[in-house]
Amino acid sequence: MSQLEKMEVNPDLAMERAKCNFNIMELTHILDGGEENTVRRKKIEDIALNSGASKDAFPEEHMSPKEKYENAVRKSCIFADLVKNDFAHLTGLETFGINSNVIRRTADAFFKEVSPFLLHMGMFVPTIMGQCTSDQMSYWLPRAMAMQIIGTYAQTELGHGTFIRGLETTATYDPETEEFVLHSPTLSSYKWWAGGLGNTANYCIVVAQLYTKGECHGTHPFIVQIRDEDTHMPLPGITVGEIGPKMGFNTADNGFLGFDHYRIPRDHMMMKNAQVLKDGTYVKVARHGKLTYGTMVFVRVMLVSEAAFNLAKACTIAVRYSAIRRQSKPKPDEGEPQILDYATQQHKLFITIATAHALQLSSSWLWRSFSAVLTEMKEGNTDKLPEFHALSSCLKAVSTSDAAYLIEQCRHACGGHGYMISSGIPHLYNFVSATRTYEGDYTVLLLQTARFLVKAYEQAEAKQPLTPTVSYLKLAFTRKEPWDSSPAGIVRSFQALAAGKVSTCVKNMRKRMRSGLSEVEAWETSTIQLVSAAEAHCRAVISDAYKSETERLTANSSPNVKIVMEQLSTLYLYYWALERIGDLLLYTSISEKDIVELQTAYEELLQKIRPNAVGIVEAFDLRDELLHSTLGSYDGRAYERLMDEALRSPMNKEPINQSYYKYLRPMMKANL
Amino acid sequence: MSQLEKMEVNPDLAMERAKCNFNIMELTHILDGGEENTVRRKKIEDIALNSGASKDAFPEEHMSPKEKYENAVRKSCIFADLVKNDFAHLTGLETFGINSNVIRRTADAFFKEVSPFLLHMGMFVPTIMGQCTSDQMSYWLPRAMAMQIIGTYAQTELGHGTFIRGLETTATYDPETEEFVLHSPTLSSYKWWAGGLGNTANYCIVVAQLYTKGECHGTHPFIVQIRDEDTHMPLPGITVGEIGPKMGFNTADNGFLGFDHYRIPRDHMMMKNAQVLKDGTYVKVARHGKLTYGTMVFVRVMLVSEAAFNLAKACTIAVRYSAIRRQSKPKPDEGEPQILDYATQQHKLFITIATAHALQLSSSWLWRSFSAVLTEMKEGNTDKLPEFHALSSCLKAVSTSDAAYLIEQCRHACGGHGYMISSGIPHLYNFVSATRTYEGDYTVLLLQTARFLVKAYEQAEAKQPLTPTVSYLKLAFTRKEPWDSSPAGIVRSFQALAAGKVSTCVKNMRKRMRSGLSEVEAWETSTIQLVSAAEAHCRAVISDAYKSETERLTANSSPNVKIVMEQLSTLYLYYWALERIGDLLLYTSISEKDIVELQTAYEELLQKIRPNAVGIVEAFDLRDELLHSTLGSYDGRAYERLMDEALRSPMNKEPINQSYYKYLRPMMKANL
Repeated sequence: MSQLEKMEVNPDLAMERAKCNFNIMELTHILDGGEENTVRRKKIEDIALNSGASKDAFPEEHMSPKEKYENAVRKSCIFADLVKNDFAHLTGLETFGINSNVIRRTADAFFKEVSPFLLHMGMFVPTIMGQCTSDQMSYWLPRAMAMQIIGTYAQTELGHGTFIRGLETTATYDPETEEFVLHSPTLSSYKWWAGGLGNTANYCIVVAQLYTKGECHGTHPFIVQIRDEDTHMPLPGITVGEIGPKMGFNTADNGFLGFDHYRIPRDHMMMKNAQVLKDGTYVKVARHGKLTYGTMVFVRVMLVSEAAFNLAKACTIAVRYSAIRRQSKPKPDEGEPQILDYATQQHKLFITIATAHALQLSSSWLWRSFSAVLTEMKEGNTDKLPEFHALSSCLKAVSTSDAAYLIEQCRHACGGHGYMISSGIPHLYNFVSATRTYEGDYTVLLLQTARFLVKAYEQAEAKQPLTPTVSYLKLAFTRKEPWDSSPAGIVRSFQALAAGKVSTCVKNMRKRMRSGLSEVEAWETSTIQLVSAAEAHCRAVISDAYKSETERLTANSSPNVKIVMEQLSTLYLYYWALERIGDLLLYTSISEKDIVELQTAYEELLQKIRPNAVGIVEAFDLRDELLHSTLGSYDGRAYERLMDEALRSPMNKEPINQSYYKYLRPMMKANL
Repeated sequence: MSQLEKMEVNPDLAMERAKCNFNIMELTHILDGGEENTVRRKKIEDIALNSGASKDAFPEEHMSPKEKYENAVRKSCIFADLVKNDFAHLTGLETFGINSNVIRRTADAFFKEVSPFLLHMGMFVPTIMGQCTSDQMSYWLPRAMAMQIIGTYAQTELGHGTFIRGLETTATYDPETEEFVLHSPTLSSYKWWAGGLGNTANYCIVVAQLYTKGECHGTHPFIVQIRDEDTHMPLPGITVGEIGPKMGFNTADNGFLGFDHYRIPRDHMMMKNAQVLKDGTYVKVARHGKLTYGTMVFVRVMLVSEAAFNLAKACTIAVRYSAIRRQSKPKPDEGEPQILDYATQQHKLFITIATAHALQLSSSWLWRSFSAVLTEMKEGNTDKLPEFHALSSCLKAVSTSDAAYLIEQCRHACGGHGYMISSGIPHLYNFVSATRTYEGDYTVLLLQTARFLVKAYEQAEAKQPLTPTVSYLKLAFTRKEPWDSSPAGIVRSFQALAAGKVSTCVKNMRKRMRSGLSEVEAWETSTIQLVSAAEAHCRAVISDAYKSETERLTANSSPNVKIVMEQLSTLYLYYWALERIGDLLLYTSISEKDIVELQTAYEELLQKIRPNAVGIVEAFDLRDELLHSTLGSYDGRAYERLMDEALRSPMNKEPINQSYYKYLRPMMKANL
């Protein structure tokens, strides 16, 4: 690296920076949600990254999975120390609010993949805070916060993920000893997937079917000790281990866990929402269902924000690389252009920037709106919860799916070199791709949203009032939406087509029920279209939120920042209008001429964004330590960094690999 | 594994097999291109896989990249022996024809990833056969075939891939010594990517700019010795090494290569198509350009076929797993359904099967048609070459892109467990995803096809005759295609919309040229739409080929095989019609009512295919050794295999990982 540190910035990148016509830092403040957030974020990054503690002497990519895990444990302990001692003094930092994101992001930089403690801070601690009685909390929380114990959260089993009611692990209360007996009756009942479970955690929150007095009361959470606090040996009755290599998350020792009539004390059941008394009587305390919605919405908003963050990394890499890569010679008398000058490259990349903005602003908007609902909830009003549950479901589904898709598009835009692990993009894809599935699979979540939409449609039909994000459904009962190519007009069109799609689904289901299908069957046979309707709803919501948040946030901006943000939010609308021409033709009055004009406007907008492209991605303010990328570093020295990284390979430490002597030479010489 | 070998087939899979209503083996013969091909393929698989030589005592996923490479070299030597000694006796086996595919496929099974010898047999030997004079060939070919030397093929450089004219490596002839001096003038001129180059190969075909008598004659291939034949040490003047970890191909030691005024004898230039005489005179022998088209078309057809093969693996895994996975309880009084019963799952999966068929049949069709052209070419007629070049370009682009996308869709359809490396799907994605970029990037290839289409359009406009695959372009000059929902009607509609899109592009470019843009600029500003037009053309070609090949191949089939193949080819047409509703509304007379009917017909077709789904994927006849999948094995014991594989992890060989003592325990105890 010593050579590289002395290198000047690639002149192509320097040129791009020189021609950027807006105040980059101003945009950064907007994206961070205010200057004070930027300042705090930078402080955290400085503390975590400037010490160099996150750097690996030996590049992680060359390690075996086991070595990677061991290295991640080493760094986790350093990072845990930072969180406890150094970050704690920073003002305004919530450890579990939306700003905790900043810590998560810095952790990403620290680990390249993820920490084996991810679920300790991300699920174990929050669940203690949410599901324990105050007595229980005063026992468990200090121990967990001080990391005297390390926990994780085990819900998913080999046989069941989506369908929680189908979980098979049992917790049967024994009033004789005042204990619960945890048991795994089948192989498919083994817990599977929990991060940190394989080797790291000594405690685990286990979700199991609660049985008492011969009756099943459904799934409940229990705090279960799985390893000896002194020796770390798995306790008798516990089978625990690591599940093996995955596409990503390979430093997280995701684990499996089985119980053989394993006993825990009665008060290790988390008793805030339900209790089992000493004699085995089951007592339900709170309205279980609705309250857990709150955590679910929070986690999903986080995943939207993470999708935005990782997409921002991918497009920073791809845009910088496209500014320094020169290829082909379309005009014989000129040099090779920067590939960022090609329209097809702009088409691939600028939507990724706009989407990163759209998702970031939508997640902040959703969190702000939801915080208000949380306040109402504390006062006992849970009316708005279904709307927010539906919103967070589809936003999580669509944003993780879009981000994963567009991260791959960034990789494709980097040509062959994007395929190198050192480009940094494969890691991003593997990470975001996982979030598309966990905490609610894409299709399952969209069907949950669809169920809400169908109910809302029926309310609209009955002329009942509608909650804000679905009030547009009344458009389903008016004439075709007249096409209007202004941003506001396109948002209305997206609403019209979402309304149209929901309407088509409902009509379809009714027709099928009239022809003899049950409601369940009519629903099932309509699910392909219901998923599509829910996606359209979500697209309308994101478009609307992105547009209005852009207006709100740039109300007092300098003119050029305002222009840049508007260009991107308009690009998002044009892009998706062109992707949904079929639906627009069906549900609005758009004409062939309108489409040609829209396509031209889109292509012209790409050209307008082009000169500021590097500046725009640099407003994400992603340090090299966060990008982990040979192609996307600040100095733009992609080729030098690729070579430098290659030379660090253990394969290049010896001129001849031992396999030559063992296998190749005997074969080649045998044939002489 | 011992436990597993005794296990019975999962009853859900047994039930699926029992209800399959067609002759699976008959379909296998059709897909293989005849019973004799099936027999030969099975013989090769038996020889290669029954010995167990491909099995790793220690699962490859747990190794470091270096260990993976060394293991692959070990197996490569065993496999090379099989090819030379055991396969050689099989009749009808071309080592370099379309049937060589079978060997490639078996090699995939053998290596899980790829062999470091991949480019030796795949590029070094074929280039010797194609580019050497007969004298040269008689020297090099026997040595290469006997593997006395191991070669690779280095064209791409750090700075140039797509734009071959931009390569910077120079080969300057020195008449004094009758040598070429190879030199890497810049870092970006270093060769980069060649498989087997890092540590394995001792020879390399290098593509370099040829200079003689002070003049540059463009790129030419040279045979270059890079390592000592006896010691394997890199020779003086050569810098060679491995490029580092990639998303896939990690067993292939892709390498870099630089030259410092490195000298090779004059006759190491491959002189079939051009020569440099002793005095340095440059002589062009053959029509260089057109002849190299032949190899390019061949390689691309191979990649289409590989895309089909890997997609077939992914859908075999996903369909089998969907048959044994049960989840949710939509009807309270019934058990959990197989997830294959959900419409959304069928929507995800059946198009993957249909696409695997479509790509396999299209590649065979293309190869058959092209073989006829090759015969004509030998007689001096190269008229049809541009058409086949355009065809193979777009087919390679679209098939690798579709296959990569659909492999991911198969993974998504497997939920969380698809994310495990042991599911086998991530490897398939990483492999096919690479083929989307190498040998011509997606966008670049589609633009090459677009150029051909624009020329053909101008011919149609001038009422000149058109070659068969573009004769439909005359539809651009007629009235809107009337919608007809029969398979033949849909194919015609796809042609109409491809014609319409090409027409729109041409009109656009002309308009832009009238407004002052140069031809190059008008082309560049239209590239987004040109890519889309070329994709539409390719879709029309695949649809047409798939439909007509299905008819041809089932002309004498038993009725149920015919029905199954027709259902799938119709599904392909319905699926893409629904994906292209916007274009159909613009370029055909399709109505809102037609669309609703089409959607219904599509959903009904999914239900018709459902009972035979497992049978259909099993007609691909993919042995467990080829699938490498815990989720997709023949016995359907997914959960048992996941657990079995997890237990093989080195992380599970010791109850406590050393990092506990080194890092975790000190941290946890410090906080007590």
